[in-house]
Amino acid sequence: MTENRIYNFNAGPAALPLSVLEEIQESFLSFKGSGMSITEISHRSKQFDDVINDAVARTKRLLNLGDNYHVLFLQGGASLQFCMIPMNFLPEGQSADYVNTGTWSTKAIKEVEIQNKKCETVASSDDRDYCYIPKNISFNKDAAYAHITSNNTIKGTQWDQFPNVGDVPLIADMSSDIMSKKFDISPFGMIYAGAQKNIGPAGVCMAIVRDDMLKRVPEDLPSMLKYTTYSSKNSMYNTPPCFAIYTIDLVLKWLEETVGGIEKIEEINRKKAGLLYNLFDTSEFFRGTADKDSRSLMNVTFRLPSEDLEQKFIKTAQENGFGGLKGHRSVGGCRASIYNATSLEAIETLVDFMKTFEKENG
Amino acid sequence: MTENRIYNFNAGPAALPLSVLEEIQESFLSFKGSGMSITEISHRSKQFDDVINDAVARTKRLLNLGDNYHVLFLQGGASLQFCMIPMNFLPEGQSADYVNTGTWSTKAIKEVEIQNKKCETVASSDDRDYCYIPKNISFNKDAAYAHITSNNTIKGTQWDQFPNVGDVPLIADMSSDIMSKKFDISPFGMIYAGAQKNIGPAGVCMAIVRDDMLKRVPEDLPSMLKYTTYSSKNSMYNTPPCFAIYTIDLVLKWLEETVGGIEKIEEINRKKAGLLYNLFDTSEFFRGTADKDSRSLMNVTFRLPSEDLEQKFIKTAQENGFGGLKGHRSVGGCRASIYNATSLEAIETLVDFMKTFEKENG
Repeated sequence: MTENRIYNFNAGPAALPLSVLEEIQESFLSFKGSGMSITEISHRSKQFDDVINDAVARTKRLLNLGDNYHVLFLQGGASLQFCMIPMNFLPEGQSADYVNTGTWSTKAIKEVEIQNKKCETVASSDDRDYCYIPKNISFNKDAAYAHITSNNTIKGTQWDQFPNVGDVPLIADMSSDIMSKKFDISPFGMIYAGAQKNIGPAGVCMAIVRDDMLKRVPEDLPSMLKYTTYSSKNSMYNTPPCFAIYTIDLVLKWLEETVGGIEKIEEINRKKAGLLYNLFDTSEFFRGTADKDSRSLMNVTFRLPSEDLEQKFIKTAQENGFGGLKGHRSVGGCRASIYNATSLEAIETLVDFMKTFEKENG
Repeated sequence: MTENRIYNFNAGPAALPLSVLEEIQESFLSFKGSGMSITEISHRSKQFDDVINDAVARTKRLLNLGDNYHVLFLQGGASLQFCMIPMNFLPEGQSADYVNTGTWSTKAIKEVEIQNKKCETVASSDDRDYCYIPKNISFNKDAAYAHITSNNTIKGTQWDQFPNVGDVPLIADMSSDIMSKKFDISPFGMIYAGAQKNIGPAGVCMAIVRDDMLKRVPEDLPSMLKYTTYSSKNSMYNTPPCFAIYTIDLVLKWLEETVGGIEKIEEINRKKAGLLYNLFDTSEFFRGTADKDSRSLMNVTFRLPSEDLEQKFIKTAQENGFGGLKGHRSVGGCRASIYNATSLEAIETLVDFMKTFEKENG
C-alpha cells in the first residue's frame, strides 16, 4: 500500500486502481500535451473523441459485444434509468416483469408505477429480508421486458446464473458488478451501470442497449430522456461528463492491459470473495448474511456476535487503515465491498486483521 | 503562463483557475488526509457533506441568496432542465413565455412543445440571426413563468439588464454567465447553469430554485425529474457527481477568497471584454458580430475580412499558444470565450497577438 493510502472497502463511490489515479494526477494540468486539463478540453475536440471512442471500443472488447449493441454514457445514475427504461421500452397496454431482490429493485419498480405503467413483480426475496436470489421464476412470455438487479450492494446477494427468460429481452441493473465476471450478453436488451462502483467515479452511467430496443423508443419523449438521442450522437447530444468518461476509459484500459481482461478479473474476484466467505464458514464469530448460493462476489455482508462488537470492529479496522466496513445505513452490520479495484492483497490483509480481532474479542 | 499550459479560450468545457487545478492534482491520491481520492470517498461521508455544504454556502454568499432559495446540483446539463422546467413548473392549462435569443433558447422552447405544453415566444432576435437581445418585450401577466437565456455562447450576446416581468417568476439559463456579474435574484423563480463554463467541469448543473416554485412540483413525476427530490435530500437522493461538485466548491472558494467576490470579478470581466471590443471598434480588420448594446462579456464573437484569413488566424493563434478561438461549428468565424477563469493577462496577450496579426495580414 502506497504511503498515506488506506484499504478502501467503500460500497460506492469506491476504490479505483491506484495506477489510474496516478495517471490522472500526473497529466491533470496538461492532457496529452494539450496544455489544458482533461476538465478544460472541448468535448467536440479530436482529443475527447479519442477518449470516448476508446472507452466504447474497450467496453465492446471486454464484454464481447456485437455491432448490434450500443455503448452509451448518460448522467443521473442508475436512478434516472429506473424511469427512462419504462418510458422508452414499455408501450401502453403492455406489462414488464420485475424481480425484486432489494432496495434498488424496489426503486426501479416504483418508477414504473409512478408513470402509471404496468409491471408485475414475478418474484421477490422480501420474505427473508432479501438474503437470497429467487429461483425457478415464472416469467411472462408476453412481457415487454424482464428486469433484474444483477448484484445487490446492500444485502450482498448476486445472481450467479441469469434467469432464462426466453425471447423476452432481459434488462439488468449491473451497477455493482459490471465488468466483474464473464457473462453472455445475448439475452440482454439492455444493461446499465452507475460507474461509481466497478468502472469509474460518480457522475456517469453506462448503458448498453441492443438495436431492437432502440426501435421501441417513442418519438415524443423529451430529448434527454430518449436513448436514441444518445445512440445517434455518440453520447454527445449535449456536453457529456467528460472527466468521468475519461476515468472510465483509464479503468477499462487497466482492466484490459494490466489485469488481462474479464476472465482474469473474475478469477481474482472469486479468490478475493472466497477468502472472506471461507472465514465465515469456519468462524463462529463472523457470520455471513446472504444465503450461500446467493453470495455476492462484490459486496460481502456480515455480522458479529453483537452490535457493540460490530461498532468496535469497524472503529478498530478504521484505526488500522481499513475504511468503509460499515454496513449500509438501512441495514446495519458490516460490509466489505470488494470491487475490481480492490486487490487480493487488501483482502488478505483484512482477513488477517479479522482473525486477530476474533482472537482478541471472540 | 505556467510551462506547457496554453491560453485557453474554449467555449465550454473551458479554462479553470490554475490554482484550483493544482489543488485537485496535489490532493488527488488522498483527499484531506483520508487516504482516498475525492473520487473514492463515500457521498454519505462527513468529508463529502463538508464539500457540498461549503459549495452551497459559498453560492448563497456570492449571489446574496435568501433562505427562500435552494441551491441544487443535478446531472444532465442545462439540456435536461429544458424538459424538467415545464414538467415541474408549467401546469396544464397555463402557458409560459419564452424569449428566443439563439440555439439554446430554441432548444428550451422545443422541449416545452415536445410535452404538448403551451408556451409563447414573446420575442425573438431570429430576424437578424440572433445578433441582439430584444428590447421592450410584452410579457403575459398570467404566464406561469418567463424564460430567458442570459448569455448566448454561440452568438456572443448577453442581457445587460434583465427584463421586468412583474410578478411572473423569471427563469434564466445562466450556463455561460453565472457568477460573472452582479444581479438581483429576487425576480427569479429559478436560475440554472451547466457548470462547464464559469464554475466547474462538465457533468453537473447548478439549479437555484425559489420556495414558491417548489410548491408547484407535481407529486406524480418520476423521482429523478422532480426538483423536490433534490431540495429535500441536499442533492443526494442518489449518488451525486462528487468530483464535479468538489471542483465547483474549489472554484467558488477561489472566486470568494482569491478574486474577492462577484463585484470584483465583474470589474475584471468588463475590463477583459473591453480590451477586445475596443479593438473591434478601432480596427477595420476585426469586426464584432453582436450589436454593441447586446455584446457578451463572456463570449466575444468576431469575423475577419475573409474566411481564409479566419482560418489562418485560428491556425496561427494555435501555434502561438492561444486555443479555442474557432467560432461554433454552426456559425463559423471566430470566438474568444473569456469566462471568469481567463485572466486579464491572457486577453492582453491575445490582443497584442491580434494587432500583430492585423499588421502582417491587413
